[in-house]
Amino acid sequence: MPRLHPAVAAVRLAVRRELADLPAGATVVVACSGGPDSLALLAATVHESRAGGWRVVGVTVDHGLQEGSAEQAARVVEQMAALGADETAGARVQVVLDGEGPEGAARRARYAVLDRVGAHFDAAAVLLGHTRDDQAETVLLGLARGSGARSLAGMRRRFDRYRRPLLEVARDDTVTACQVEGLDVWDDPHNHDPGYARVRVRRAVLPALEEHLGPGVAAALARTAEQLRADADLLDDLAEVEHARLVRPDGALPVAELADRPDALRRRVLRLAALDAGAPAAELLHEHVRALDALVTDWHGQRWIDLPGPLRGTRADGLLRIAAPPVA
Amino acid sequence: MPRLHPAVAAVRLAVRRELADLPAGATVVVACSGGPDSLALLAATVHESRAGGWRVVGVTVDHGLQEGSAEQAARVVEQMAALGADETAGARVQVVLDGEGPEGAARRARYAVLDRVGAHFDAAAVLLGHTRDDQAETVLLGLARGSGARSLAGMRRRFDRYRRPLLEVARDDTVTACQVEGLDVWDDPHNHDPGYARVRVRRAVLPALEEHLGPGVAAALARTAEQLRADADLLDDLAEVEHARLVRPDGALPVAELADRPDALRRRVLRLAALDAGAPAAELLHEHVRALDALVTDWHGQRWIDLPGPLRGTRADGLLRIAAPPVA
Repeated sequence: MPRLHPAVAAVRLAVRRELADLPAGATVVVACSGGPDSLALLAATVHESRAGGWRVVGVTVDHGLQEGSAEQAARVVEQMAALGADETAGARVQVVLDGEGPEGAARRARYAVLDRVGAHFDAAAVLLGHTRDDQAETVLLGLARGSGARSLAGMRRRFDRYRRPLLEVARDDTVTACQVEGLDVWDDPHNHDPGYARVRVRRAVLPALEEHLGPGVAAALARTAEQLRADADLLDDLAEVEHARLVRPDGALPVAELADRPDALRRRVLRLAALDAGAPAAELLHEHVRALDALVTDWHGQRWIDLPGPLRGTRADGLLRIAAPPVA
Repeated sequence: MPRLHPAVAAVRLAVRRELADLPAGATVVVACSGGPDSLALLAATVHESRAGGWRVVGVTVDHGLQEGSAEQAARVVEQMAALGADETAGARVQVVLDGEGPEGAARRARYAVLDRVGAHFDAAAVLLGHTRDDQAETVLLGLARGSGARSLAGMRRRFDRYRRPLLEVARDDTVTACQVEGLDVWDDPHNHDPGYARVRVRRAVLPALEEHLGPGVAAALARTAEQLRADADLLDDLAEVEHARLVRPDGALPVAELADRPDALRRRVLRLAALDAGAPAAELLHEHVRALDALVTDWHGQRWIDLPGPLRGTRADGLLRIAAPPVA
């Protein structure tokens, strides 16, 4: 018997570990685009399902955004069946460009379908094929967009029914696993379009980091994401407790007690207070929180500070308040 | 009167803010290499000292590592005096390459001198000229070396007597400020040597990030560093309290209580326990802490896990212990 190729072994081991808690008879849905990541994931899941006793459902989503996407989806359905999935489904979605970019709209449509498929099959888990490289790219994209632990925390390993077993597996290993297993992978043309920031990160930024800082940057980014997510989760929880403890019935916060709190906690409490007052999360930036914080720690008689909403932060009588500005 | 150039204004404002708490009569030491960052810092500090009533001492350190370094140091002493420093000093140090790299050895020698100068003048502050770009480079270097909030937290704004007023000022602004003020800046040949990882980050990595992810990456990295430092400070403090609360007199930790703690706290407590047991901080890596953590959260009868020291982590009778291995 030929020895198992290390790339195939790495993918299978990752799946086995991530699904170790599933009972026999559980249904596992695998989202599969036909690219190397998700094909390798499906193949490994089918293999591991023999020992685990799971039912494997392969799902592919046709976003209808590229010419020939229906044929490609049909091809993936065939591949999934040939790989031994117990059941397969191809779902056509309508991507509605609703103010957000095409990537965001496609993602939303995709998750809506996967949610439905997961519920329909009463799936114990819905698997996504994101790799360590996807995670590193997400961290770098987050870095360019925002700041702080949350923006660097990358993708979650699990949420709702979803799991990402390959989050510590290198993309190269999924490509090699497909080659070794003779799988014919789909090369998504979107992956070559430099109009997407993610494609630029993949093709130019990460290679530059690896060239000049040494290999292992992608792994370091993925490790960092995992740790920062744990940090951010704890700090956010602590801030919620602290906010609930400090806030008055009318929403005001006592300045003296805020000032006592460590920076990391105080700023998060201030952010929560702004959200509670109705500031839209997507528009509430670091500089807004800093301006609020200056009312507490750098008070020199500011009349008010402006926040999205629009809202105003004011300090008076030892209390910080966030409210809509008075009608002119 | 000509309008103040925005770059000069930015440097002065940063100095004014960072030194706002200094009383009149305070002595401020400025460390000055003759490069644009520290020359702009010195010029701005001298300017602000008129309103603040501070005495400004300019210090330059000759590391003796390059040909002509003594002449260069003498030149900087002259420049500092011409710029209006109340007192100037040039200090020659002996850089001892003691296992560490030349950058680390030079830094250690430099701080030893600055410590002494600060003490000699009873300085209220010793100013360092690191800019936002230095901070961004430090974050990227930390990212390549390690992982987690601490390795991304960059340089501190203040420690001991030291302060870094320019940590939010762009390096370009210091260069422009020197040009506008007619200052003849020194171009350190080390800044062109791609043998230094920092030089590669400056010349290749950050430009690639800015090109492909948009301008503002350096600013985002610097903001991120500040926030992650605050997060790491709080989490480290919480972990110390938690460790002190959990640890038995013999150093053992109760597994059940550890397992209850959030990931971010539990892993930091485990790291503290390993350090307490004598693991060298520089050798204690993320994977060691993860292996320790697996004794708590992924227990399947591991006999022991190896830690630097050498030490061993073991679990028995509901207790986690870290100790030297038994003598063979």
